[in-house]
Amino acid sequence: MYIPTLADMLVAHERIKPYIHRTPVLTSEFINKLAGADLFFKCENLQKAGAFKARGASNAVFGLTEEQAARGVATHSSGNHGTCLSYAAGRRGIPCTVVMPHTAPQAKKDAVRGYGGVVVECEPSTTSREAVFAEVVAKSGAEFVHPYNDPRVIAGQGTCSREMLEQVAGLDAVIAPIGGGGMISGTCLTLSNLAPNVKIYAAEPEQADDAYRSFKAGKIIADDAPETIADGLKVPLKDLTWHFVSNHVTDILTASEAEIVDAMKVIWKRMKIVMEPSSAVPLATILKNKEIFAGKRVGVVITGGNVDLDLLPWQRPEFGG
Amino acid sequence: MYIPTLADMLVAHERIKPYIHRTPVLTSEFINKLAGADLFFKCENLQKAGAFKARGASNAVFGLTEEQAARGVATHSSGNHGTCLSYAAGRRGIPCTVVMPHTAPQAKKDAVRGYGGVVVECEPSTTSREAVFAEVVAKSGAEFVHPYNDPRVIAGQGTCSREMLEQVAGLDAVIAPIGGGGMISGTCLTLSNLAPNVKIYAAEPEQADDAYRSFKAGKIIADDAPETIADGLKVPLKDLTWHFVSNHVTDILTASEAEIVDAMKVIWKRMKIVMEPSSAVPLATILKNKEIFAGKRVGVVITGGNVDLDLLPWQRPEFGG
Repeated sequence: MYIPTLADMLVAHERIKPYIHRTPVLTSEFINKLAGADLFFKCENLQKAGAFKARGASNAVFGLTEEQAARGVATHSSGNHGTCLSYAAGRRGIPCTVVMPHTAPQAKKDAVRGYGGVVVECEPSTTSREAVFAEVVAKSGAEFVHPYNDPRVIAGQGTCSREMLEQVAGLDAVIAPIGGGGMISGTCLTLSNLAPNVKIYAAEPEQADDAYRSFKAGKIIADDAPETIADGLKVPLKDLTWHFVSNHVTDILTASEAEIVDAMKVIWKRMKIVMEPSSAVPLATILKNKEIFAGKRVGVVITGGNVDLDLLPWQRPEFGG
Repeated sequence: MYIPTLADMLVAHERIKPYIHRTPVLTSEFINKLAGADLFFKCENLQKAGAFKARGASNAVFGLTEEQAARGVATHSSGNHGTCLSYAAGRRGIPCTVVMPHTAPQAKKDAVRGYGGVVVECEPSTTSREAVFAEVVAKSGAEFVHPYNDPRVIAGQGTCSREMLEQVAGLDAVIAPIGGGGMISGTCLTLSNLAPNVKIYAAEPEQADDAYRSFKAGKIIADDAPETIADGLKVPLKDLTWHFVSNHVTDILTASEAEIVDAMKVIWKRMKIVMEPSSAVPLATILKNKEIFAGKRVGVVITGGNVDLDLLPWQRPEFGG
């Protein structure tokens, strides 16, 4: 297992700068009053392809040799990673294949195709996904870029908190959502090296709290199929992300589905940004753990903005809509 | 009639800087391809209180003498100006009264009150509004701050395009929505002085095209009660804004209701920002007048982000929702 270093992150940042946005940091007095803290929202929903994953994907794609690049890249993801890998591959002009279940939302397939990637459909089971993916790679020789358990991806995600350090002085803490742990691992990589006094918190839905339980148990616990509105956060930790989480995270905090949707609506209403439920989990946990953050300067990563605009979470009957 | 000058705008900018955001300029490759032009979106939806009107209102409020300030400010507006005047008055710690019809949406009343302003309700007629407003001013001696036909307000709005000039090099044109003409007048004030080669376009709903018809006729034509989804743009030009529009605007372009809603959804989907229908009118007109903007670098003012998140325009039956 190769553990990415500060140098990898710095190289990644130089490499990907032409292909990513240096996203703005937004603040809201209203939300600060609500939280009793100074929150600085790093808006990766405004990132290329709508998610921080454009960073890691671009680092992986643009780090390939010409020979590797000619064979293209491949992944399995029905989430933002698939879209972002397709975006990065498109920018380099190389093939990208994304394996996803035929049951995945049409919008996700369209997003991959919109950037020039090819969608290969499998059955909605791990066995089918692995078989189909193996076949894709065997045929094309494409480079597998894992959504998060990949040192190139983690080094790329680490560029986000490097920008935050440049954009906001005197941070006491940074908080980001945790699913597989790619963003949190990149955050750990950067902050443990460049700002070791800044505390790192991870935020997770109660209904998909495998990282929380792993953290408390001291070993990876993977749930089979958790259900949450924060659909980017269902995947489990892996060895590389566990390394960073177990070594550098101060604590993992959780929030209920209703708390997540409430926090999401507050952010839309007051900050005027479109962001996905996963990105609201940090604010939801801050608002229910005010004593931890009281009076502190806290960086909050808004991880992505890909959401169904025809049916917003608070319009669903289960959230009172 | 006092016509605000470049000096007024520069003083306004220094005066209001502590109370406003220097809003970011966002871009979207997808929308650029759609338009065949390089569009730079100045995001005043991310402004304090959710609209560019925080600029003009702050300039008016912080330009008052202590004696004037003690008597407070007042306006009639059921839109963003009322909210923004309340915001600015709250920052200075002075009273603010906003007269609006009792039929105005609860959210608008709540927004004014949320910043500490007082809402005084009138009947939904011009006669009632004027009578109630005259009474408020007679009783309090409050300073009237008109939503747009006020040199202090126009000088404040002009700070937006000054920032745009600093943020984007080589602009060929700037386009903003036009209702009463406050933003456009501020834009004219700044650009005619600092960047006279940059063309200025105004964008208006077809269903409320009184500024368009005024521009073509060479004199102010005021409609009584136009109806449009772009509800910030229903008000007519007045003498001061007509001065700027008639002297400095290159052209006024219009778009249909459906075109406005389509442009709005594209911006939400691709740029991940919450903005109101009025703010989508410029993109709607760009997309139907591509020949004017082809290959050009165009600043586009996203004027505000105050919208009902429970029922988005494209969810309404009349727009196919």
